[in-house]
Amino acid sequence: MQAELKAALRSASGEVDAILRSAVPADGGPVANAMLYAAMGGKALRAFLALEGARIHGVAVEDAAPGAAAVECIHAYSLVHDDMPCMDDDDLRRGKPTVHKAWDEGTALLVGDALQAMAFDLLGQGGLPDGRKLALSTSLARAAGLFGMVGGQAKDIAAESAEEPLTLEQIIDLQRGKTGALIEWSARAGAVMAGADQTALARYGECLGLAFQIADDVLDVEGDAEAMGKAVGKDAGRGKATFVSLLGLDGAKSRAVSLVTEACDSISVYGDSAETLRQAAQFVISRRN
Amino acid sequence: MQAELKAALRSASGEVDAILRSAVPADGGPVANAMLYAAMGGKALRAFLALEGARIHGVAVEDAAPGAAAVECIHAYSLVHDDMPCMDDDDLRRGKPTVHKAWDEGTALLVGDALQAMAFDLLGQGGLPDGRKLALSTSLARAAGLFGMVGGQAKDIAAESAEEPLTLEQIIDLQRGKTGALIEWSARAGAVMAGADQTALARYGECLGLAFQIADDVLDVEGDAEAMGKAVGKDAGRGKATFVSLLGLDGAKSRAVSLVTEACDSISVYGDSAETLRQAAQFVISRRN
Repeated sequence: MQAELKAALRSASGEVDAILRSAVPADGGPVANAMLYAAMGGKALRAFLALEGARIHGVAVEDAAPGAAAVECIHAYSLVHDDMPCMDDDDLRRGKPTVHKAWDEGTALLVGDALQAMAFDLLGQGGLPDGRKLALSTSLARAAGLFGMVGGQAKDIAAESAEEPLTLEQIIDLQRGKTGALIEWSARAGAVMAGADQTALARYGECLGLAFQIADDVLDVEGDAEAMGKAVGKDAGRGKATFVSLLGLDGAKSRAVSLVTEACDSISVYGDSAETLRQAAQFVISRRN
Repeated sequence: MQAELKAALRSASGEVDAILRSAVPADGGPVANAMLYAAMGGKALRAFLALEGARIHGVAVEDAAPGAAAVECIHAYSLVHDDMPCMDDDDLRRGKPTVHKAWDEGTALLVGDALQAMAFDLLGQGGLPDGRKLALSTSLARAAGLFGMVGGQAKDIAAESAEEPLTLEQIIDLQRGKTGALIEWSARAGAVMAGADQTALARYGECLGLAFQIADDVLDVEGDAEAMGKAVGKDAGRGKATFVSLLGLDGAKSRAVSLVTEACDSISVYGDSAETLRQAAQFVISRRN
């Protein structure tokens, strides 16, 4: 990862953590403790995208940071709930026990619920005009809900019991909700904060979100092949359609590369100031985990 | 129940249902179907409070209805999640199977998550000024989250494994979050929508919320005693401190009556136009279920 991108991600993570530490009491009981456990210390890719878009548009970091923290709260809540036994039933997340393992299922449920509420509470902070805060809030609600992330998750679950594997079009639709909607919201947020045209960042975010998911599917295959001793990729093993199963490994990789090129091209209007966003797009398909 | 109150509750329920039907696609798959199943057809007490406060302040019903529907979405999501096996593990709600019984736990989790997001999406609708919509949204997030409903729920769970039963002060604090915060938000909402002073309605809502919970504890004892064949009240049976265990049955009833009197007195500034709100306060302590 390039130094500028690394510094920007670290800075984004620091902004999010500072906001969460001031929003959640340090000795506030198990739910408060588990909220901080779940929401802090992540890669903060979504917060980075929001802060970077804001910086490009001249929005002050203290006005942009609440929105950046809000989308990380939504992302964190979705991971806590997805990890629960009634969903993916995962014991580890970022190398640490998941919330329902470190605490219990009831706490995990409440932690996710409270993190989602906190996102919409945070969006009232900072000095942006009310209309822009409201636009951030309603668009984040849309991106998080039935027509975005939750909807994609619901389609993913339905696909597991479907008789036919999904088509490429259906997988793109599913991923646009499940992972794409929050990434696209994050990319657009800086323009919304500035009251500026969102077209370029929206296109960047859309391409980035899809490239991100294709890279995930590639990692599911290549990561496993490299890490000897592990079985075949878990998605392929379940007979689940993925970008790799539908496009082939080389086809998936080249699709991701062309999406990243399109992402970078779409923000050419910002010139050199968008360099870190371009680095992020490249990073998304070159990451190893 | 008095005819005016009955009509106003039915009307509130109709407003909520209309908004939900236009917000959630009718053939949108299991999660969308279960969202409508969970959120429609309730008593709509909270929506009624919001709409009635709005009417008193001259806010048009089409501008107030999204907020009324939003708080019902939050209430409905909390019931769906509370009923899950990792929380209260209830099979029936309003005489129908709970969402995780009628569908499954994963669906129930997503339904609650999507209903919460939808609340903040709906708050963008209608013709109120942006600043007031934003104030509704951030205050609802606060009332729903760690410092309100979820926080109260967390305290309730913690109390179940505590060595000492809660004190009266602790129960009041717990209930102020668990059930009080949404009721108070609903009562205040009309004044927020109008940009008017919230003091009177806030006090009304605070007293009403507490009276509501005391009445619940009374019903838990008297309802059971009357319905022969059922065991002693479930809270008392669990050794859980309630308003009845702390104040005695008569003490709890007289506390509820004086809270209702205070609720009614606090909105005297609105004169006859607040008559239905007074009826609602009386109803809360006279209901049989």
